[in-house]
Amino acid sequence: MSAPAKSSAGYHRACTGQALSTVESHSTLPSNGLTIFGAAFCPFVHRAWITLEYLGIPYRYVEVDPYEKPQILLEVNAKGLVPSLRLEDQKSGKVQGLGESTVIMEYLHERYVEDAKSPSKRLLPPMDGSEANVYARAQARLVSHHLNGKLIPSFYRFLQAQEADKQVEYGKEFTDELRWLQDRLEEADRSEGAAGGPFYAGRKELGWVDVMVAPWVFRATNVLQHYRSLDLQSSELFPPGSRYDKWAQAIFAHPAFKATTSTEDLYLDSYARYAENRPNTSQVANAINSGRGLP
Amino acid sequence: MSAPAKSSAGYHRACTGQALSTVESHSTLPSNGLTIFGAAFCPFVHRAWITLEYLGIPYRYVEVDPYEKPQILLEVNAKGLVPSLRLEDQKSGKVQGLGESTVIMEYLHERYVEDAKSPSKRLLPPMDGSEANVYARAQARLVSHHLNGKLIPSFYRFLQAQEADKQVEYGKEFTDELRWLQDRLEEADRSEGAAGGPFYAGRKELGWVDVMVAPWVFRATNVLQHYRSLDLQSSELFPPGSRYDKWAQAIFAHPAFKATTSTEDLYLDSYARYAENRPNTSQVANAINSGRGLP
Repeated sequence: MSAPAKSSAGYHRACTGQALSTVESHSTLPSNGLTIFGAAFCPFVHRAWITLEYLGIPYRYVEVDPYEKPQILLEVNAKGLVPSLRLEDQKSGKVQGLGESTVIMEYLHERYVEDAKSPSKRLLPPMDGSEANVYARAQARLVSHHLNGKLIPSFYRFLQAQEADKQVEYGKEFTDELRWLQDRLEEADRSEGAAGGPFYAGRKELGWVDVMVAPWVFRATNVLQHYRSLDLQSSELFPPGSRYDKWAQAIFAHPAFKATTSTEDLYLDSYARYAENRPNTSQVANAINSGRGLP
Repeated sequence: MSAPAKSSAGYHRACTGQALSTVESHSTLPSNGLTIFGAAFCPFVHRAWITLEYLGIPYRYVEVDPYEKPQILLEVNAKGLVPSLRLEDQKSGKVQGLGESTVIMEYLHERYVEDAKSPSKRLLPPMDGSEANVYARAQARLVSHHLNGKLIPSFYRFLQAQEADKQVEYGKEFTDELRWLQDRLEEADRSEGAAGGPFYAGRKELGWVDVMVAPWVFRATNVLQHYRSLDLQSSELFPPGSRYDKWAQAIFAHPAFKATTSTEDLYLDSYARYAENRPNTSQVANAINSGRGLP
């Protein structure tokens, strides 16, 4: 890359640690024609990237600076947001694009799991005519809908709050959302067919809900700990052994998560702008400041 | 119903016109055990209800007052929001609930279309291994994601704005979103396999995107026309014959839309609270006023 690895604004322009190794081993276009445009620090990219790694889908990873919006990104996503997929038909050469992390997750799951003859891994129960499975799929979507609408915006409100009283107020909102999530984890453990595993709905392997929120759960342990003194493991609600902590640790130890995660200094550096609520930090930060929904 | 058909706050507690006939012919629980809890004026209910009618799914409709939150509703949705589904297993008697209109649409489509042997109708292209179809499904979700995050909140901002300059500003935002939608309609008309029909992606029958936004497109023609003097057909952008108008008229003429739509006076009465931005009009209105995402 020609640009320095750290921008003058402080965010990183290249992955570090295990994520960098993964980038280096995904530098050529595979025969399925799939490229993901990512940014090292971006949690929405992280979601899509965990999905690719977990499902074992061949892909090329291309790091872009979403604040510079290179032409290769704009060609597949007019908004210039990451993550974006570039889908090249290897026969016709036709190129199509796709954006939005949740839409990308649905697309990858449909193309490489639901449409596959015998998928070895999946994030959602199969559509096999079982009423329990179709309901479990809906429950995973319902919990994800809540996390997207409530927990994730509350992460940014807490991090961007500058006044002490607002930090207290929004910090409580954020941990209330984690408590809500812990309640859902415990509730889903009791659902039909739950297998006693550490992931959502007692799965023994990563699932839809886990991937959806993993990037922020991780950033809470470093970014929010560093800038907002949040210490979940020392709290009464989420100590080691709590349902939340067991779940979070299982995510952090998962190979697909580790393969897509940089060293913690990258996240601390890249989120300083949010923690100081600098103007035009990102479209996400602006949306929180203006009281609009996330872009 | 014991309560008066119109509350003291002015909103209707029972459907009128064709929607009332549809309610009356769906008063008993069918053998699939499916009940939808709805509210006459609610656009989120409207989405789920159009889906049920269009796909020909048997259901019972139960009108509830979401501001009174009866116990039968709270039993299946702790938030007490509409639409909610009550799913009763006719063998075991077990009851489960489901909320959120987009999650309900996904659930109904998976249970009654994707899981069905030979569905006669569908809102999304089939998952049949075709790359064009899986991409078309993703595009429909991408457009819906934008409509949910941008167009629908802008409808409420415009309607709830009290100062003249805010009404001008938010009115422009709303029509900008309609123009974005018209651009997407025109773009999708040129997509692979588009069949030249009036609905999104040139479909000759209702589809995912159409159902997702139909309730607000309709309320723009009466609620926004009455309270905010919006006249789309007289505008340069959306006159009769424009892509937007052809699409909107096709929706309004569709049997599944007409069967779930009350007379226009019901909507005018029920939205007076929004147009005057009265306190605690609804969770949606409060979210817009406080600058939070929709509930």
